[in-house]
Amino acid sequence: MQKISSVLLKRSANTTFRTHSSFQYANLVVEKNTKKQRLPSDPEKLGFGRYFSNHMIDVDWDAKEGWFAPHIKPFQNFSIHPAAKVLHYAQTIFEGLKAYHGVDGKIRVFRPELNMERMRRTARRATLPDFNTREALLLIDELIRIDADMVPKTDKASLYIRPMLFATDQHLGIGESMQAKWACFTAITGSYFNYDRGIRLLADPEMVRSWKGGVGQYKMGCNYAPTIFVGKLVSRIMAAMQGCDQAMWLSGEDRLVTEAGAMNLFMLWTNEENELELITPPTDSGLLLPGITRQSVVELAREWDLMKVSETNFTMDQLVRAVQEQRVHEFFVSGTAANVGPVSEILYCDKERGVKENLVIPTMSSKMQLVKRLNKTLSDIHYGRIEKKEWQRIVELN
Amino acid sequence: MQKISSVLLKRSANTTFRTHSSFQYANLVVEKNTKKQRLPSDPEKLGFGRYFSNHMIDVDWDAKEGWFAPHIKPFQNFSIHPAAKVLHYAQTIFEGLKAYHGVDGKIRVFRPELNMERMRRTARRATLPDFNTREALLLIDELIRIDADMVPKTDKASLYIRPMLFATDQHLGIGESMQAKWACFTAITGSYFNYDRGIRLLADPEMVRSWKGGVGQYKMGCNYAPTIFVGKLVSRIMAAMQGCDQAMWLSGEDRLVTEAGAMNLFMLWTNEENELELITPPTDSGLLLPGITRQSVVELAREWDLMKVSETNFTMDQLVRAVQEQRVHEFFVSGTAANVGPVSEILYCDKERGVKENLVIPTMSSKMQLVKRLNKTLSDIHYGRIEKKEWQRIVELN
Repeated sequence: MQKISSVLLKRSANTTFRTHSSFQYANLVVEKNTKKQRLPSDPEKLGFGRYFSNHMIDVDWDAKEGWFAPHIKPFQNFSIHPAAKVLHYAQTIFEGLKAYHGVDGKIRVFRPELNMERMRRTARRATLPDFNTREALLLIDELIRIDADMVPKTDKASLYIRPMLFATDQHLGIGESMQAKWACFTAITGSYFNYDRGIRLLADPEMVRSWKGGVGQYKMGCNYAPTIFVGKLVSRIMAAMQGCDQAMWLSGEDRLVTEAGAMNLFMLWTNEENELELITPPTDSGLLLPGITRQSVVELAREWDLMKVSETNFTMDQLVRAVQEQRVHEFFVSGTAANVGPVSEILYCDKERGVKENLVIPTMSSKMQLVKRLNKTLSDIHYGRIEKKEWQRIVELN
Repeated sequence: MQKISSVLLKRSANTTFRTHSSFQYANLVVEKNTKKQRLPSDPEKLGFGRYFSNHMIDVDWDAKEGWFAPHIKPFQNFSIHPAAKVLHYAQTIFEGLKAYHGVDGKIRVFRPELNMERMRRTARRATLPDFNTREALLLIDELIRIDADMVPKTDKASLYIRPMLFATDQHLGIGESMQAKWACFTAITGSYFNYDRGIRLLADPEMVRSWKGGVGQYKMGCNYAPTIFVGKLVSRIMAAMQGCDQAMWLSGEDRLVTEAGAMNLFMLWTNEENELELITPPTDSGLLLPGITRQSVVELAREWDLMKVSETNFTMDQLVRAVQEQRVHEFFVSGTAANVGPVSEILYCDKERGVKENLVIPTMSSKMQLVKRLNKTLSDIHYGRIEKKEWQRIVELN
């Protein structure tokens, strides 16, 4: 999986440049922050992505020179040229992963190599430079080590890690950027949602997130901007009811169920063949993001072998019928920020077909308690209460 | 068209804020640049968007306080918080328009109110704050006035104007930004394309720019990022032939012809009813950007009344048949950067249908010379050789 970093020789008209195919941890320059942070003492009040830790990684790239030496420096604003392509043409990609302070005092990062591999696939699609997974992981380890006291010492919070890569070219033409920046910072983070009530979803085929031939399967910034307005509409439509409501994204004439908000989704149901099945839409359609939590849920459920586990498409019609016939037991979303979140209702509005129907899902009262079990197991792995070495990257502290 | 700016009262829990619904030219603060630019003396060498002038407009917005006083200041980098939504979720929009140094020494901007109206429509869809068209135009006038000596004194170049609006919120949650920045800078610009040869287009239905329910009709940054990779593929596929080649975007099972690169497109043909017709796809599909040059071409052609002018969809099948029957006389693209550009060949690759065909279009040798005539008329209006007051905003110099 991990490509060995190599030295690439590029020849231009008058001069020869040496270009590393990745930034190198060995070249890291560290400038420590002397200021101290003040944070809310109650982890419940941290919210998501509001409190940033003291340092950040910053690495520049140039088409001629390749990657420059990585820096870890005090958390600070970027200085960005007004013509940088990120500001105009949205040439930016990102990742989200988390570090947890374990019950044994060790800090664990959850499957970060999967995030780095996905980030590299996304970079290719976004025409941004490639880098080495191992070098990126070593840099992230170092960033966490330096800000180790910012990893919350509670299982109600964690350190959210946000790697990003964006085009910094100083030229307005729409085309490949000749300059880019790889950066990473962290945010002390409580829970994204309050799950006491279950999430309500709004499914309306006029709200479209992705399409065939598009970039829905990549974590590119451009997939998110159009959803902000839709999120606002959803809140407005559902204003009468409280809580953390999201769009459920359908696709095409078949009304395929694909994602919810910026998360993957799962249904535990008795399918048309009378089998107990955990079903989630497949990623090969190109319509949805291959989530790391999604993959982990599929793998855990397959290990447990309590039910059939399928990565298969299902339609809104199938869902409606199954709810009517009381065959849907649990419905939930998954994501790094959200973990696994129970869905309690789906409001299905389909103007074209004259449908407006509220589907009540008994997730919160399910006897199987799959959502609870998944959340507990994931949390046990995150906080080191159980060992699953290949999912737990331990950050060695000094 | 121009909404009168009004004072909006917003009430929050503890305090009352006064929010102007737009930034105000009357509050402008100007800080002059003392440095002088060095530019290539040959306008042909300017390229597109590489040489920036000395000043920029910078206006901040905050959900509580509304718009702050606008600043014109020396052209400089932005200082952007690492969590700003523009860098992660592509919450950014832009416009492109031009100022021309006329043969009478006056500086004219081409139909800027249309750009500002489109920018405001786009801002609404991008969940970014609204502003007043007239105030924005007054600010742009002032910016041009201050950098008036940067407007090239030749009809081979112009001053490209780039207004932009992006989310600067310091919070990672995917949602409405509570802070934003409106900015505008200018670039001394030669021609975007070299038209000696005609443009070659590659039409492949696997390359998709926009989709129903998406944001293809808005000038949002997120529409551009996914096209950069496609542009690179097009160059690679057509590497054997030189020149300025672009993707021609098709849509859906019908292979509707929609756009080319980041431009609108037109065809002059003898249609199936044996009428001479200038045809361009309609904007109400939501699949293409309603270009200002596109609108101007339609309006000019209707004024001239030499042919039927239609905003109607046409398919790849119709195009292929018409080329075979020698009914296509001219094919061209339109845009602010490109003006009107002749297309000489369209390579149609449709794997699903087993089609690979090169369509040769006789645009360069057409007797009608519509492309030439349009370019000349637009240029005459730009540089003030003919008067068309409602399309020419004159920047009063001091």
